[in-house]
Amino acid sequence: MLGVAEAGIRKPSRKDLVLISLSEGSCVAGVFTKNRFCAAPVVISREHLASGRPTRALVVNTGNANAGTGEDGLARAYLTCDAAAALLGCLPAEILPFSTGVIMEPLPVDRVVAGLPICVADLSETNWGRAAEAIMTTDTVAKAASRIVALSGQRVVVTGIAKGAGMIRPDMATMLAFVATDAAVSKPALDRLVREVTDRTFNRITVDGDTSTNDAFMLMATGKSTLPEVRSPAAAEYIALREAVTEVATDLAQAIVRDGEGATKFIEVRVVGGRSEEECRRVAYSIAHSPLVKTAFFASDPNLGRILAAIGHAEIADLDVGLLRLFLDDTLVAELGGRASGYREEDGQRILRQSEITIRVELGRGQDEVTVWTCDLSYDYVRINADYRT
Amino acid sequence: MLGVAEAGIRKPSRKDLVLISLSEGSCVAGVFTKNRFCAAPVVISREHLASGRPTRALVVNTGNANAGTGEDGLARAYLTCDAAAALLGCLPAEILPFSTGVIMEPLPVDRVVAGLPICVADLSETNWGRAAEAIMTTDTVAKAASRIVALSGQRVVVTGIAKGAGMIRPDMATMLAFVATDAAVSKPALDRLVREVTDRTFNRITVDGDTSTNDAFMLMATGKSTLPEVRSPAAAEYIALREAVTEVATDLAQAIVRDGEGATKFIEVRVVGGRSEEECRRVAYSIAHSPLVKTAFFASDPNLGRILAAIGHAEIADLDVGLLRLFLDDTLVAELGGRASGYREEDGQRILRQSEITIRVELGRGQDEVTVWTCDLSYDYVRINADYRT
Repeated sequence: MLGVAEAGIRKPSRKDLVLISLSEGSCVAGVFTKNRFCAAPVVISREHLASGRPTRALVVNTGNANAGTGEDGLARAYLTCDAAAALLGCLPAEILPFSTGVIMEPLPVDRVVAGLPICVADLSETNWGRAAEAIMTTDTVAKAASRIVALSGQRVVVTGIAKGAGMIRPDMATMLAFVATDAAVSKPALDRLVREVTDRTFNRITVDGDTSTNDAFMLMATGKSTLPEVRSPAAAEYIALREAVTEVATDLAQAIVRDGEGATKFIEVRVVGGRSEEECRRVAYSIAHSPLVKTAFFASDPNLGRILAAIGHAEIADLDVGLLRLFLDDTLVAELGGRASGYREEDGQRILRQSEITIRVELGRGQDEVTVWTCDLSYDYVRINADYRT
Repeated sequence: MLGVAEAGIRKPSRKDLVLISLSEGSCVAGVFTKNRFCAAPVVISREHLASGRPTRALVVNTGNANAGTGEDGLARAYLTCDAAAALLGCLPAEILPFSTGVIMEPLPVDRVVAGLPICVADLSETNWGRAAEAIMTTDTVAKAASRIVALSGQRVVVTGIAKGAGMIRPDMATMLAFVATDAAVSKPALDRLVREVTDRTFNRITVDGDTSTNDAFMLMATGKSTLPEVRSPAAAEYIALREAVTEVATDLAQAIVRDGEGATKFIEVRVVGGRSEEECRRVAYSIAHSPLVKTAFFASDPNLGRILAAIGHAEIADLDVGLLRLFLDDTLVAELGGRASGYREEDGQRILRQSEITIRVELGRGQDEVTVWTCDLSYDYVRINADYRT
């Protein structure tokens, strides 16, 4: 169940605090940012997850990241857990705290504590949409997704929410995402599932190449369905559930990119024919992070040599550019080290005017492939981030 | 001697072609982009330098990069060398070609060839300033620097020009830079000198993290001074010359950042106390490439938690953020994992309004240090790169 409150953490009159309470027997697994300046709540959520205690509830605030706040930040996050535990009649180690917002400012923990009883009174299973709103920062739309999947002939539900629009280049998981299912899943299987899904969804998006201090993706299995617990990664149930969770996570990850700060275009970068996933990823991110590629896409200017330059500086020392082929959607743009003879600027122009575009790079050196998603770079990215604290 | 022409390569009525002719006995060394999509002229300049032939002249055009142009691009760059060699009465292998401008469009080599005799007629030792203008693309100011240094009591001159404002994150050398001295330097000593200087100057700047296909930094020693040839890297003459060349190259590299596309602020990022130069460089570039740090600086908004986030994602796995200290100029901003108790937002605000700012990070884990230079990210970066080809 989810409960929402207006705690006034940064701005008045907006939902900014969420409590997700879990029924007994629920299993939780998560992945967190690798940023060394990870936030106090990330440190504590990791610690509580590792304690072996069951998780009774998650507390999420927006408006303040409680990152870059040292010992004082940890103390404030512990106070949040203490307050939630007292309200729910459980141990503080059974609470996972999450924060998002401005870095290096003290969390107004008194307002969080005052908001928690309001969240508890608000608890309901139908609050996913309101919770999605309450975790937004620069997001312009709330992000939620759901799938129903049949496991052993019985329907189970997978529902999730996420937030994030800037400081997006997850290195484990993106800003904040919470996905729950009523399937029963063992802890080892759920730990594996959250990593497998992350690698193909939240770890495949970038807006600006900046990795947040607060990234976290939590996967919760309540076991409320009457199905037997999913344990083996080889089981048909595990695979069906992974597909449903992957779909939900892909929806959420793509929603973050579509809502990327200032974004006007959604860009899929598909790199195929690599010798390893690692080199495909390197090429894909070199394109997806190039400000020159991103501004050309914003301008709908098919200045596509910039994509070649980005591929070239992906640090694949023995890349043979003569074997490489570059496509925009299905149009061949470059081959044999230069512009394809059949390529017409009008075709590039037409494709770049679209709001969704696929860049496909064939490396011509192996069988591996990777897809990442990103957006263009516009005036509004600069405006939003120049004005963020005002 | 340098000669300049209006060849009409991309736009009419602007200087866009430069010939640098070298007196007999000159020695040339260079470093080039590591971009795998390196331009045809880069391929040929590397080949000609490696041929063991002396270099008689350098030909530089702006307006077209002749990169991402395949076999046809190579043929056009060879034609440029053939035409220059015929005019100067030397072998094509004694010519080094350089190009900068739009990628993946055919070089109008007929216009280059037609412009060369005009360059030859224009040759003069006093043309450095006009040559600096003739290699500009999105540059708003011409970039030249000069030093006089005493070697064994005799004055020698070091003079250079450079161009570049965007697609700047050299991985060997920046866009184009040409530095000459009248000292005599042996080829092995000059090869060493160009690498040593590059590592501390052009490889320490970034505007947008994009590495160009055409980067080249050429160092020319004409030997016109009557001093004995500098051979040993241990000689006092080598060290004095290196200092002068480093100063010229630093001036040029910093001029590129100051003229960074849309730049309003010059930012020095100094990372000290690292265990290795490599980890200092990683932290420095993580800050210097962060769009969130750069937009905050553009807005003069001391949202300095973003610097902590950038340090945290520099992938130093065992970084202890509790030991780290962050300064803006001489003001301590963060320590012990969070905001310094003496830090006042007004101080950060005052420093961020300056046009030149130093970010200093003390890692507290070793003796190594690295300094890099960058600029802020403004609306104009987006405008310039969205409109580049129009």
